[in-house]
Amino acid sequence: MSTDIGLPVTLKDIRTAATAIGSHVERTPARYSQTLSKIAGCDLYLKFENFQFTASFKERGALNKLLHLSPDERRRGVIAMSAGNHAQALAFHAGRLGIAATLVMPETTPFTKVKHTRDFGAQVILHGQTLSDADDKARELAEFDNLVFVHPYDDPAVIAGQGTVALEFLADHPGLDCLVVPIGGGGLVSGVAIAAKTLRPQIDIYGVQACAYPFMANALRGLPTKSGTPTIAEGIAVKSPGAITMEIVRTLVKDIFLVPETDIESALARLLEIEKVVVEGAAAAGLAAILSNGPLFQNKRVGLVLSGGNIDMRMLTNVVLRELTREGRIQSVAIEIEDRPGFLAKIAQTISEAGGNIIDVHHDRMGQEQSAKSTTLSVTFEARDAVHAVAIRQGLEMQGYYLLGRHLTPVGRTAP
Amino acid sequence: MSTDIGLPVTLKDIRTAATAIGSHVERTPARYSQTLSKIAGCDLYLKFENFQFTASFKERGALNKLLHLSPDERRRGVIAMSAGNHAQALAFHAGRLGIAATLVMPETTPFTKVKHTRDFGAQVILHGQTLSDADDKARELAEFDNLVFVHPYDDPAVIAGQGTVALEFLADHPGLDCLVVPIGGGGLVSGVAIAAKTLRPQIDIYGVQACAYPFMANALRGLPTKSGTPTIAEGIAVKSPGAITMEIVRTLVKDIFLVPETDIESALARLLEIEKVVVEGAAAAGLAAILSNGPLFQNKRVGLVLSGGNIDMRMLTNVVLRELTREGRIQSVAIEIEDRPGFLAKIAQTISEAGGNIIDVHHDRMGQEQSAKSTTLSVTFEARDAVHAVAIRQGLEMQGYYLLGRHLTPVGRTAP
Repeated sequence: MSTDIGLPVTLKDIRTAATAIGSHVERTPARYSQTLSKIAGCDLYLKFENFQFTASFKERGALNKLLHLSPDERRRGVIAMSAGNHAQALAFHAGRLGIAATLVMPETTPFTKVKHTRDFGAQVILHGQTLSDADDKARELAEFDNLVFVHPYDDPAVIAGQGTVALEFLADHPGLDCLVVPIGGGGLVSGVAIAAKTLRPQIDIYGVQACAYPFMANALRGLPTKSGTPTIAEGIAVKSPGAITMEIVRTLVKDIFLVPETDIESALARLLEIEKVVVEGAAAAGLAAILSNGPLFQNKRVGLVLSGGNIDMRMLTNVVLRELTREGRIQSVAIEIEDRPGFLAKIAQTISEAGGNIIDVHHDRMGQEQSAKSTTLSVTFEARDAVHAVAIRQGLEMQGYYLLGRHLTPVGRTAP
Repeated sequence: MSTDIGLPVTLKDIRTAATAIGSHVERTPARYSQTLSKIAGCDLYLKFENFQFTASFKERGALNKLLHLSPDERRRGVIAMSAGNHAQALAFHAGRLGIAATLVMPETTPFTKVKHTRDFGAQVILHGQTLSDADDKARELAEFDNLVFVHPYDDPAVIAGQGTVALEFLADHPGLDCLVVPIGGGGLVSGVAIAAKTLRPQIDIYGVQACAYPFMANALRGLPTKSGTPTIAEGIAVKSPGAITMEIVRTLVKDIFLVPETDIESALARLLEIEKVVVEGAAAAGLAAILSNGPLFQNKRVGLVLSGGNIDMRMLTNVVLRELTREGRIQSVAIEIEDRPGFLAKIAQTISEAGGNIIDVHHDRMGQEQSAKSTTLSVTFEARDAVHAVAIRQGLEMQGYYLLGRHLTPVGRTAP
């Protein structure tokens, strides 16, 4: 497959972008992961775009776009809609370059994000409840105030900027057999694909989307997508693939994987626990795709772009606690006991002697399947691992307690 | 202050160690942190020892020690007591070098740690309930089975290995004015101090301990320490400073800061949220010391060794949730309401209209300060930030609800 087929961005554009953005963007590390390679059954290399100053690759495209503005456009200033990575990236580099920037964000945007953006010197306009409302407002203001609207992905200068990720990745690890890249609007994968396929035609480029937001994947197959469903991969929860990017993806991307939410959560938890890095859902989606497509990647040299690290801290704790529950390290048992002194003490002692740590207790006396003289005791405990949890459950059963089913979820109910 | 005063480890030993351990340990990155520098009011450089394969600097000393063994000692094999970073480091490199390794760990050690250690080819003996029990057993076995006991810190070869951290740090950033290093037994700070003070006599070395475990700090001042109290900085919760290391610390370390638990937690949360890295409590303690000693470090070039990244994932979620609570992003309000239909619905609506997300609700009908016709409703909600939380509370007050005190902690009660 060749790339000299009239695509609107070329390797030369991407090399020019690399020179232009220079040292104003982090040259992020690309490291081999010994443990994840073993788990995935391939040689896995990770490129850490979460270590960019605003914690995502978006700076590359935004800065390159700003550097492409004419003197007149610079004077007019730029506008964009985003409550996410594009906003931070554009505001930061516009501020650095002395270009006036306006960011339209939904009224519900966390104050810290608004503050960060203002601290970069940008004007923030809070408008509407949804991204769509904010987008309409941004386009309206662009026209009304004669500002340059900076699209987050469907723009050749933005795509060329994102492509610099692949230049660096292949410079560090020239022998990669394939690259795995998350896809929202398609800006990152487009730039990466053009650079990588031109430099190394035999390389395979794979895209990744959340099952919850398969807009690009479906659009390429001519299928409609009614609407997205909630996903932790907010960075790739994009409803309108770009026209330019879709053409590039159609031409250069071998396949798009769709990954379910629980796989994304598990991948995110693994990157946290094994690699000691915080990534956002979109980045974790890439690892999820590799782990659930083992045979395809077996023994290959696989490059994964960890696109960003912006994740809400409470969401991060939810992801970890849900993973611990899936792994069986946090478990709940329900036991019908007589409603009189001593039972909780005995059960608590049995669990503690087995080394379990009780983290929540709940009594239910209203269940109609039980006697009025009984109560159902739900105990959530933490074990050292799943094997240990089984031993604790068996310890209770050997004391004669009948465990009412297996309750993996109640912890989610009480966890904030 | 000079270092040629007959200390048992020299810069030459550390340089020899660097050559010996070579590429078998990660040459970890040392990056400038723009955001943390701004917060701390100094130029802050972070050295990421949490990116070592076993996620701590301990590999440097353990490997150097193994390479110092005589052919006879290699044949006999090594033994150590540790359920932590030293065990992983020693087991990994002994396995790589084909040296038999025995690790004695308490019976309560998580199975995954035991499994990791065994996967490296080491023999694991589970013994006793505490580290002290395991330590006794390890020394007994060392004598009985004629094994080489590898001390985690009070050994010149181990100290020389840890000193390579400073060689790399100063090679990357030669102009550092001071280094901040966590202290447990003192192996890391000793090696770092010898290398750094010899290469750059004007550099200041600061140690950091948890208030909960001030054993080295107190020992240096001739003060007794009765016992430690619980700390998340497990890696520096050491009761017996080394004899060799204490002498080096006394000679070369300018001061030891003691940091309280909440400061360590906040620092850990900041490294997670800002730097996108997972560190363990010991590493976070260093940042805590810098943030709480602002004037001392002002405008200085400060190097901080992030010593490791091994932290239990549930502990990590606790740290984050507690920090969100301290920041006011998670809050609980208690309201006395009449125990009849409609009140919860109204309160929930008021909170949701203000943009708050309710994460827990609790009714208490037993409080004797209230009427039997009342119930105290505790609602825990998440706000976008502290300012938003205040707006939500005011929204409730404007509806005529009297909020019973300010409850910052109840969320900890229900969080697993």
